[in-house]
Amino acid sequence: MVIRRCLTLFVICYLNILMLASIVSANGELFDEGLSDPLPSWKDGLVKDAIINFVANTTNESHTNYVAPEERIATFDNDGTLLCELPDVVQVSFMLDRIREMAPEHAEWNDMEPFSSILSGDRFNSANFSLNETIQIYIATSANLTSDQYISLAKDWLNKSQHPRFGQPYTKCVYKPMLELLGYLRSEGFKVYIVTGGDEDFVRSFSDEIYGIPPEQVIGSALRVQFVEDNHNVSVVKLPQILVFDDGQEKVKEIVQNIGLKSIFAYGNSDGDIPMLQYATSDNRHGLGLLNHHDDPIREYAYDRQLAMGKLDKGLDMAGEWDWQVVSMKDDWKEIWA
Amino acid sequence: MVIRRCLTLFVICYLNILMLASIVSANGELFDEGLSDPLPSWKDGLVKDAIINFVANTTNESHTNYVAPEERIATFDNDGTLLCELPDVVQVSFMLDRIREMAPEHAEWNDMEPFSSILSGDRFNSANFSLNETIQIYIATSANLTSDQYISLAKDWLNKSQHPRFGQPYTKCVYKPMLELLGYLRSEGFKVYIVTGGDEDFVRSFSDEIYGIPPEQVIGSALRVQFVEDNHNVSVVKLPQILVFDDGQEKVKEIVQNIGLKSIFAYGNSDGDIPMLQYATSDNRHGLGLLNHHDDPIREYAYDRQLAMGKLDKGLDMAGEWDWQVVSMKDDWKEIWA
Repeated sequence: MVIRRCLTLFVICYLNILMLASIVSANGELFDEGLSDPLPSWKDGLVKDAIINFVANTTNESHTNYVAPEERIATFDNDGTLLCELPDVVQVSFMLDRIREMAPEHAEWNDMEPFSSILSGDRFNSANFSLNETIQIYIATSANLTSDQYISLAKDWLNKSQHPRFGQPYTKCVYKPMLELLGYLRSEGFKVYIVTGGDEDFVRSFSDEIYGIPPEQVIGSALRVQFVEDNHNVSVVKLPQILVFDDGQEKVKEIVQNIGLKSIFAYGNSDGDIPMLQYATSDNRHGLGLLNHHDDPIREYAYDRQLAMGKLDKGLDMAGEWDWQVVSMKDDWKEIWA
Repeated sequence: MVIRRCLTLFVICYLNILMLASIVSANGELFDEGLSDPLPSWKDGLVKDAIINFVANTTNESHTNYVAPEERIATFDNDGTLLCELPDVVQVSFMLDRIREMAPEHAEWNDMEPFSSILSGDRFNSANFSLNETIQIYIATSANLTSDQYISLAKDWLNKSQHPRFGQPYTKCVYKPMLELLGYLRSEGFKVYIVTGGDEDFVRSFSDEIYGIPPEQVIGSALRVQFVEDNHNVSVVKLPQILVFDDGQEKVKEIVQNIGLKSIFAYGNSDGDIPMLQYATSDNRHGLGLLNHHDDPIREYAYDRQLAMGKLDKGLDMAGEWDWQVVSMKDDWKEIWA
């Protein structure tokens, strides 16, 4: 038995050496790091340099900006940062479809705004609703469900969904350079979180599959929940009440309370992400802040200061003073879609 | 260059084989798993069998109870489960010391309960205070601090602390069998969380060092916080208001919202842990629930139904019906202290 195992080991070593030798002959060099570009969809330039320098310094034990692996926390917004958010935020499209689907059981909605004008087709986009109305729709479509039930509905809908312009499921409308960046940070020991204004269960329904980000690294908006015990079955059910609307300063409060570590990298695309960027880049900790600037109407969309939801206005003005990178999706990205 | 590297590889392989051969000759067998006891401080018996069988089934791909590694979530209470909680909960001792330390700046406390009787020495233990008074003390000793400041105070205090009976720092008064269990679960792919009624920053101040549990895997009570921006410095400061008192059903709600995955293992020691055990063991998911029964007055303490804080009463009655393991610290543990 022992002799057979030793023999197997010898054979494995021999095969390894053969394989490595063939790699050597193909590449000429072996084990040299830094030869392959970790961000191939990013054009060379100031933004890419800033990212690569930040990672190089943070992970270099002899650099003054070195950060231990367990403290390398990176936070990303979702809509508009990782995923296309026009012509509408994906979750809003889901919610409006759910209102239409639930309508037969809610005769009262025919005379009740904002539901009646969704059902009549007069209002069909985030831009048509006030924040309060959006929250009303959010509550109506999420309450009285467990997380499992909600996630299952979201998954079913996402599987059927199609982006009206790109003809792909919404979950395919993710930015290739951003997926590369998530992978690059992870490979350098960063723990990557999503910190989103969207419902955390909605984002959890696809974050692991699409971004490789597990549920416990998704922080987002949520309804209050209730513990329900029914004959030895225990479940937790969403109540018709907002627990947290995870935008603006709320994002930072959630990072502090959920992670318990200071983030040193923050990436967003709207004014709602400003506090998250401030938190990662203040305090002389040499953090990095970035904002996607949607300036590519050909390959995606062009919008910033005028938009109601996802507006990037103050962020553009603050970027210089705070030393944040404004990423031109037109000029800094070779490719846009994954 | 290439030839030198290949030569190095050959030498490494050769040395590996020599090393493995020596292990083989020492043990007679190589790569056979399961020979060493993962829980050496646990006596053989029903409880130990239940733990080992649960882990074996959960990690066995061909077993009906198999759970994928990313869904192996284990939740542990802290005080009385991992750490000695008598003669007082460690955090309460910290808070009472802090009241005494802060007193010179709070002349008003001399005429204000519960502070005045802490300062006079008339009240000196959790049992002396109502829940509302404890929360008052908690708020007074935590508000207006950032997490970093609070954690730094907690660390300083813990370093100086000494258990009145065992003459060790409180952070040394942890149960050896529990540390073994944490390590065993982790080695089998479980992600281990603390879900505590204690302040999450207090527990974060020692959880990584003592238990190997990082801050983001500590869920606990917390005050509300405020985002503060002051001339390019951003911080998050605790407000004098409870955000969550993480006991009872609240523990389950926090698990659902913070982790987003169902726990399949829950270990506590008081009635406040019952919902957490119910959650892990309901729903035919073959989860495992355990309760430490403090029945060893010689090596630790003996208490259950009569205690005010940390009372184990209903839990003892429910254990049979729910198939939870009641762990006799006297009979199931060979050793008690780490």
